[in-house]
Amino acid sequence: MESAIRIIGFDPGLRFTGWGVVETEGSKLTFIGAGTIKSDAKTDLATRLCALHDGLQTVIADHDPDEAAVESTFVNKDATATLKLGQARGIAMLVPALAGLPVAEYAPNAVKKSVIGVGHGDKKQIQLMVGMLLPKAKWDSDDAADALAIAICHAHQRGNAAHRIAQAAAKRS
Amino acid sequence: MESAIRIIGFDPGLRFTGWGVVETEGSKLTFIGAGTIKSDAKTDLATRLCALHDGLQTVIADHDPDEAAVESTFVNKDATATLKLGQARGIAMLVPALAGLPVAEYAPNAVKKSVIGVGHGDKKQIQLMVGMLLPKAKWDSDDAADALAIAICHAHQRGNAAHRIAQAAAKRS
Repeated sequence: MESAIRIIGFDPGLRFTGWGVVETEGSKLTFIGAGTIKSDAKTDLATRLCALHDGLQTVIADHDPDEAAVESTFVNKDATATLKLGQARGIAMLVPALAGLPVAEYAPNAVKKSVIGVGHGDKKQIQLMVGMLLPKAKWDSDDAADALAIAICHAHQRGNAAHRIAQAAAKRS
Repeated sequence: MESAIRIIGFDPGLRFTGWGVVETEGSKLTFIGAGTIKSDAKTDLATRLCALHDGLQTVIADHDPDEAAVESTFVNKDATATLKLGQARGIAMLVPALAGLPVAEYAPNAVKKSVIGVGHGDKKQIQLMVGMLLPKAKWDSDDAADALAIAICHAHQRGNAAHRIAQAAAKRS
């Protein structure tokens, strides 16, 4: 027998970090919440990182997830943008880890493959599928929708992993 | 009258984060401590970021600095390396900020200019000057020596800033 597992997904960014929470129980997937943590671009970097840290802490405290998943994307256009993303991503992995959650990472094409069936596709296609998989889902930004897609991806992957472990255990016995 | 200000400098990295603490009182500069926080490359990213977080928290608790300074360098060789550095750098800015310290950022050439007088120079030249400015200083890695250079740079810069503010106040009165 399996009990419900609550998963929080993060699409990190210095300006906007999307978050999305789903619950998975067997093959059933339920929308719990989604939103966007914002940092004020007019404040200094340390203040922005603190705002992100506090926002993540609040979301985790409010929704009490069991596991976290973060997108492992990087912006390749320039080093400054990549460094900024890295700074936000470090905080988005640190806060759930400090809260004792296992933190999984997924590449963008793995998220797409899990949600829309192929490793490529635009934001519209992803949001269409997120809406179909989670009919009650609402989101306030593209980043929040992406975060839900990441949470769905982890729900699928961890299910597969559990299935594989169960199969391997059955073979051994 | 000015009282002593304790500054902690960080040279962040995912594998090695150097730290160095100096005390500045007027033009006097005193070495307090330096070292290296390491993270185990064999563990997953979330665990490594937690290790860095805990190491930074311990060093700050042990040395009780008033202000922090972090190098704003980035590795330009590839996006993966830059993202990794960003993740470590995010934590190195977050932890002192959460502890209530103001966090200053300095570009590598600003640090070099402040310590060796010109905006370029190799590790040997920097370490020679750190040793001359802080005769009692000891360090266990290049990163720890760089962190001391960053702390020295901030001591010089904040001194200049205080001097400029005092001059401006004198002009107004």
